Amino acid sequence: MLNIAMAQIKVTPGHPDQNTQRMLAMIAEAKAKGVDVIIFPELCIPGYLLGDTWEQPAFLRDCESYGDDIIKASEDIVILFGNVAMDWEKKNNDGRVRKYNALFCAQDGRLVAPDNMPYPFIIKTLMPNYREFDDTRYFFSLQKLAREIGTTAERLLSPLTLDIKGERYRIGGLLCEDGWSDDYNLTPIAELNRHHDIDFFVNISASPYTLGKNEKRNRVFGAEAKAAHTPLFYVNNVGLQNNGKTIYTFDGSSTVYSASGRIIRVCPAYEESLCCTELERIDSLPEVAQEALPDIAHIYRALSYGIREFLAEIHMKKVVIGISGGIDSAVAAALYASIVAPENLLLINMPSVFNSQTTQGLSQKLAENLGCQYMIVPIQEAVDLTKEQLEGLPVTRLSDGTVSHLAVSSFVMENIQARDRSARVLAGAAAAFGGGFTCNANKAETTVGYSTLYGDQSGFLAALADLWKHQVYELANYLNHTVYQREVIPQGIIDIVPSAELSNAQNVDEGKGDPLRYPYHDYLFRAFIERWQKATPEDLLLWYTEGTVEEHLGCAPGLVQEYFPTAQAFIDDLERWWNQFTGMAVAKRIQAPPILAISRRAYGFDHRESQDGPYYTRRYRQRKAKLLAAATGQK
Amino acid sequence: MLNIAMAQIKVTPGHPDQNTQRMLAMIAEAKAKGVDVIIFPELCIPGYLLGDTWEQPAFLRDCESYGDDIIKASEDIVILFGNVAMDWEKKNNDGRVRKYNALFCAQDGRLVAPDNMPYPFIIKTLMPNYREFDDTRYFFSLQKLAREIGTTAERLLSPLTLDIKGERYRIGGLLCEDGWSDDYNLTPIAELNRHHDIDFFVNISASPYTLGKNEKRNRVFGAEAKAAHTPLFYVNNVGLQNNGKTIYTFDGSSTVYSASGRIIRVCPAYEESLCCTELERIDSLPEVAQEALPDIAHIYRALSYGIREFLAEIHMKKVVIGISGGIDSAVAAALYASIVAPENLLLINMPSVFNSQTTQGLSQKLAENLGCQYMIVPIQEAVDLTKEQLEGLPVTRLSDGTVSHLAVSSFVMENIQARDRSARVLAGAAAAFGGGFTCNANKAETTVGYSTLYGDQSGFLAALADLWKHQVYELANYLNHTVYQREVIPQGIIDIVPSAELSNAQNVDEGKGDPLRYPYHDYLFRAFIERWQKATPEDLLLWYTEGTVEEHLGCAPGLVQEYFPTAQAFIDDLERWWNQFTGMAVAKRIQAPPILAISRRAYGFDHRESQDGPYYTRRYRQRKAKLLAAATGQK
Repeated sequence: MLNIAMAQIKVTPGHPDQNTQRMLAMIAEAKAKGVDVIIFPELCIPGYLLGDTWEQPAFLRDCESYGDDIIKASEDIVILFGNVAMDWEKKNNDGRVRKYNALFCAQDGRLVAPDNMPYPFIIKTLMPNYREFDDTRYFFSLQKLAREIGTTAERLLSPLTLDIKGERYRIGGLLCEDGWSDDYNLTPIAELNRHHDIDFFVNISASPYTLGKNEKRNRVFGAEAKAAHTPLFYVNNVGLQNNGKTIYTFDGSSTVYSASGRIIRVCPAYEESLCCTELERIDSLPEVAQEALPDIAHIYRALSYGIREFLAEIHMKKVVIGISGGIDSAVAAALYASIVAPENLLLINMPSVFNSQTTQGLSQKLAENLGCQYMIVPIQEAVDLTKEQLEGLPVTRLSDGTVSHLAVSSFVMENIQARDRSARVLAGAAAAFGGGFTCNANKAETTVGYSTLYGDQSGFLAALADLWKHQVYELANYLNHTVYQREVIPQGIIDIVPSAELSNAQNVDEGKGDPLRYPYHDYLFRAFIERWQKATPEDLLLWYTEGTVEEHLGCAPGLVQEYFPTAQAFIDDLERWWNQFTGMAVAKRIQAPPILAISRRAYGFDHRESQDGPYYTRRYRQRKAKLLAAATGQK
Repeated sequence: MLNIAMAQIKVTPGHPDQNTQRMLAMIAEAKAKGVDVIIFPELCIPGYLLGDTWEQPAFLRDCESYGDDIIKASEDIVILFGNVAMDWEKKNNDGRVRKYNALFCAQDGRLVAPDNMPYPFIIKTLMPNYREFDDTRYFFSLQKLAREIGTTAERLLSPLTLDIKGERYRIGGLLCEDGWSDDYNLTPIAELNRHHDIDFFVNISASPYTLGKNEKRNRVFGAEAKAAHTPLFYVNNVGLQNNGKTIYTFDGSSTVYSASGRIIRVCPAYEESLCCTELERIDSLPEVAQEALPDIAHIYRALSYGIREFLAEIHMKKVVIGISGGIDSAVAAALYASIVAPENLLLINMPSVFNSQTTQGLSQKLAENLGCQYMIVPIQEAVDLTKEQLEGLPVTRLSDGTVSHLAVSSFVMENIQARDRSARVLAGAAAAFGGGFTCNANKAETTVGYSTLYGDQSGFLAALADLWKHQVYELANYLNHTVYQREVIPQGIIDIVPSAELSNAQNVDEGKGDPLRYPYHDYLFRAFIERWQKATPEDLLLWYTEGTVEEHLGCAPGLVQEYFPTAQAFIDDLERWWNQFTGMAVAKRIQAPPILAISRRAYGFDHRESQDGPYYTRRYRQRKAKLLAAATGQK
C-alpha cells in the first residue's frame, strides 16, 4: 500500500521562511502517520502572486536555500513540492536570470529527476497569461526550453520514476495550468500518458478562488483522470495572495480523482489539512458527496476568510466603518462584526442636513444589533466651513491685483460631503482608534464611478466591490438568516430605496435615490466586464434590434421595455453609463482601494485598464443612426 | 529613386477613428510629395497600451474595418502600417479570438503577403513581457504560430517582395522588440538577412520614452543595419499612452540608419512628422548630428509634453496646485505654469499654526513670479474642529451604554492636516474652479510612503513621482535658468531645508525637516527599484561589509561613514526604510494617482507589486548577526 498525502498548507506569499516552517511541520506529521509520499502545492515556498519580487536575486537564492531544507527532510518520505527553480547560467528573455515554475521531487535527501529532462525538476509547460496571471512575465516555459535545446516539449514531458518500499512507481507531474489545456495545442497529461505507464498523476496548483471554478475543475480534472485511467491528485494551497489592486483567497479544496474520474477525497475549503489516501484503495473508495451550497454561501465564506486573513496580514485589529443606514455599509458592518470583536469595531454615522431621521435611526438600530462601538459625527459644520472658505476667501491675480471668488455648486457640495465623511472623519477616527476604515463600494458603483474619490471610494479594503448590488442584498439576507440567525441588519435597511442622501434630490422618505436601476444595470455592467468576450455598446444595439437584450444579459425579461420606452431612451442610458464606465470611473479605479475578488472578473489587476476615454465603434454609430432614423420614421 | 517616408504620427490609444483620419491625411500629404513607400508605426490604428480593451470583439472588428480604409488608400503608394490582425477561426491560449501584432503592407488597394507566411501580414516574433509591456497577454507570437503549424519561425520570417515603378524591392519587416533580440535565442533581422536579398529593413515600433533609451537604440539598431549592410527605417509614434497607474510619453524620434550604421535622418521628438528619404541616396547622406542635451532637458521635455497631452486627453483646462513654499510644489507650479494659461492655474497656500512665515512668504513670491491665480486657505479652524469632534463626541457601546472617547495624538494630527489640505480644500477648490488638483510627490517619498493617503498622496496626476529628489532640484534650476530664464522659483525655496511642516519637530526656521537624507536615500531607493537586478537589504549588507556601498549605489563617496557611524546605525536605517518601502508604502501606492514615467522603472504598472509586508532573507539575517557580533567584539 502506498500512502499518499495531500499537504494543503497555507502559503504566505513572499515569506519562504514561514512557508518552509509549515512544510517541515507537516512533513513531520506525515512521517508520524506513515505517509510514503507527501505532495505540496505549486510555488509553496515563495508564494505565487508576488509582483516583481521575482526580480530580486537575493529572494531567489533564499527560495533555493529553503528548498534545500525541504530536500534534506526527505529521509523516509518522498516529497513533491513547488518552488522556483533557477538556472544561474542562463537568462530569461528579459535578460534576468532564468526562472522556472517547477515541481521538485525529493527522496532520501536528494532530488529525483524526471526520466527525460535536462534538469532535476519538472517544468510548468502551460503558462497562464490572462486575468490576474502573469506567469510568462517571470517564468520560462517548458516549450521555450524545448525550442532552445532543439527538442520538443512532448519529448521532455516525462514521468518521475521512483522506487518506494521495494516497488517501482511512475508519477506524472503537472503544474496547475498544465491541467487546463483546452485552449493550447498541447495536452501535457495526454503526452505523459501516451508514452508511459503512469501510476498516478499529481497536479500541484496555486489556484485562486473564483465562484464556480471548483465545479468546472471537477469536470475537467475528473475527465482527465478518466481518460488516462489513472488517479489524479490535485493539491492546492489555502491563504490569501494579492497583486496590489486585487486580493485573492485560495480555498485549497485539494481533491483526489479516481481512475474512473470520481471524486474520492476533498480537503476542507480554506483550512490547512493533511489528507492521506492509499493508492491501491482509491478505486474502491466511495464517491465523496459534494457540498451543495448556494452561491451566496460560497461568497460569504470567501469574503469572510479574505477579510480575516487580510486583517491578520496587515496586522490590523481595529476597524472603523462609516454607516449611512443604507444597504452596502450595513452589510459591511454585519460582515466585519462576524470577524472583528465588538470592542474593536467602531461604526460611525455622519449625518448632514440631507440625512433623514429614517436612515439615522436605522444606523443606530444596526449598531445596537451588532453590539459594537458607535459614534455619531455630524459633518454639517465642517462642510459649511469649507463652502464658506472656498467662496469667501479671495482668489487673487498677484500680477494685477484682480480679485475673484470661487462658486460652490450643489454638485460640488455633494462631493465635499462625501470627502468630509471619509478623508476627514473616518480617516481621522480610524487613526485615533488605531485601525483602518473600510470602503463599502459595490461592483455596480465601482463600474460607473458612482462614488467620490477620497470620499466613499476610499478605505483600506473594498470587500464588497466584486459583488453586484443584487448580491449585496442576497448577502444581507444570508447574514440575517444563516450567519446570525436574527435580524442584525434591520429589515428597514433592506427595504429602503438605495440613496446617497447628498442632496434633496436624493430624499429617501420621498422614495428618491440612486440613478441606477439595479435589476437592469447590474446585468448590463456585468456584460461589460465579466463576459469572456466583453460586450460593448455595439453588441447591445445589435441585441436591442433583435429584442434579445435581457436574454444576453441574463436579467429579468421585459425590463428593457419597462425602463426604456423608446430607442432614444435606451441609447441615452447606454451611452450615459458607457461614458462613465470608460471615462471618469477608470480614473477613480486607478486610485481605488484593493478589491477582494470572488467573481470571474474583478476590477484591478484582473481587469487591466487604460485611461483612454469612451469610444464608440463605427458599426455602433451606424446601428445607432439606423435605429434612431427608424424610430423617427415610425412617429 | 525610391522615395520612402517615415510617417511619425500621433497615436491616440483606443481611438481607431482618430488615428485612421491622421493616417489618411498623411497619406494624402505623402502622395502630394511623390512618396513611393510610406511607413507608419506599430499598432498605429488601435494604439498599443490599451489594457483589456483587446478583449472586446467589437473593438477588434472596428480596427479591422479601419485597416481596410488604409488598404483602400494605397492606390499609387505603398503603405506599411501596424494593426492588430485577427484570425476569427482560431483561438489564443486564453480561449479568446486569435490576435497578432502585425505589420501590413498595402499596394494598389490590396495587401501584399510576405514570401512565406500563411497570412497576408508580418507577425511580431519577439514579445516583450517586462516593465509596462504585456504583449504575451494579448498577442500570439510568430514562434507560437510556427509551432502550431509544424514549422519554425526561422522559416516563416520572410521579406515582402514588391514591384514599385518597374523595379523589384525586398523589404525586411520587423516590429519593435524584433529589433531588440539580445536576450532571445532568435534574431529576426539576421534570419531575414541570411536567406534573402533585402533592400531595406523597416522596424515599426510603439516605443515609450525612457531616459537614455534612444542612445541605446542607436547603438543596437545602428549595429544591426551595419551587420546586415542594409539601411534600416525605425518608425515610432508620438503621443501619450497609459496603463492606468503609469503614463508614458512616446517621443517618436523615428530614425534612418544607413547600411554602414550611421544615422542619416531623425524625426523631431514629440512632433508629428512626415520625413522623406530616397533609398538610393542614403549611403551618401551625411550623418545627422545628435542633440547633446543634458538629462534634465530631456526630462523637462518629456514631463512638459506628458502633462500637456494628459490634460488634453482628459479634457482638463484648469489646474489647482497646493503650494507649501517647499521645492516639490514649487517645481510643480513652475512646470504647469509653462503649460497652462495663468488664468487657468490656481495656486493655493494652506497654512496651519506650524507653517512658518518663511514658507508662506516664499509661496506668495512664487505665485507672484508666475503671475497666476493665488489663494490662501488657512486650515487651522477645520483641523481644530476635527480634533474637537473626534475627541469630544462619545463612542458608545450600545449594548451596555459604556461611553469612551478617542484620543488624537500629534502623529494623527499630522495626517489630519495633510488630508484637510488635499481632500477638503484642494479637491473642493478644484471642483469649484472646474479642474483638477495635482499630486506633487517625488520618487523618494513615493518609495517609502513618506506621504499621507487622501492627503499629499492624492491628485489627478503625479507628474514628478518618477523623479528623485535631486532631480527635482535639477529641474528647479533648469526651469529658472533655461525655461523661464529668470528666478520664477525663489532661490529661498531651493535653499530651504525640505520639511513637511506638520509639527514643531519639522520647524524649517530651526533647520529641521524630513527624515530622509536625500544624497544617500535617493540612491539607496533607486537600487531597490531601478536596478535591473533589484537590490535588497542582503545586497546592501554585502556591500557594506566590502565597503562598496557608495560605488554600487552611485552616490557620493564617504556618505555611509558620515551618516552611519556604526554598523547598527547603518542597519537601523536600512531596515527602517525597507520596512516602509515594502510595507505601508505599497498600500499607499495602490491608491496613488497615475505617475508620469521617465525613468527605466516607474512605480505603478511598470513595477508590479503585491502587498506582502517586509521580508528579510536568511542570508541577510546571517550577515546582520555577523556584522553586529563583530561590532560588539570591537567594543
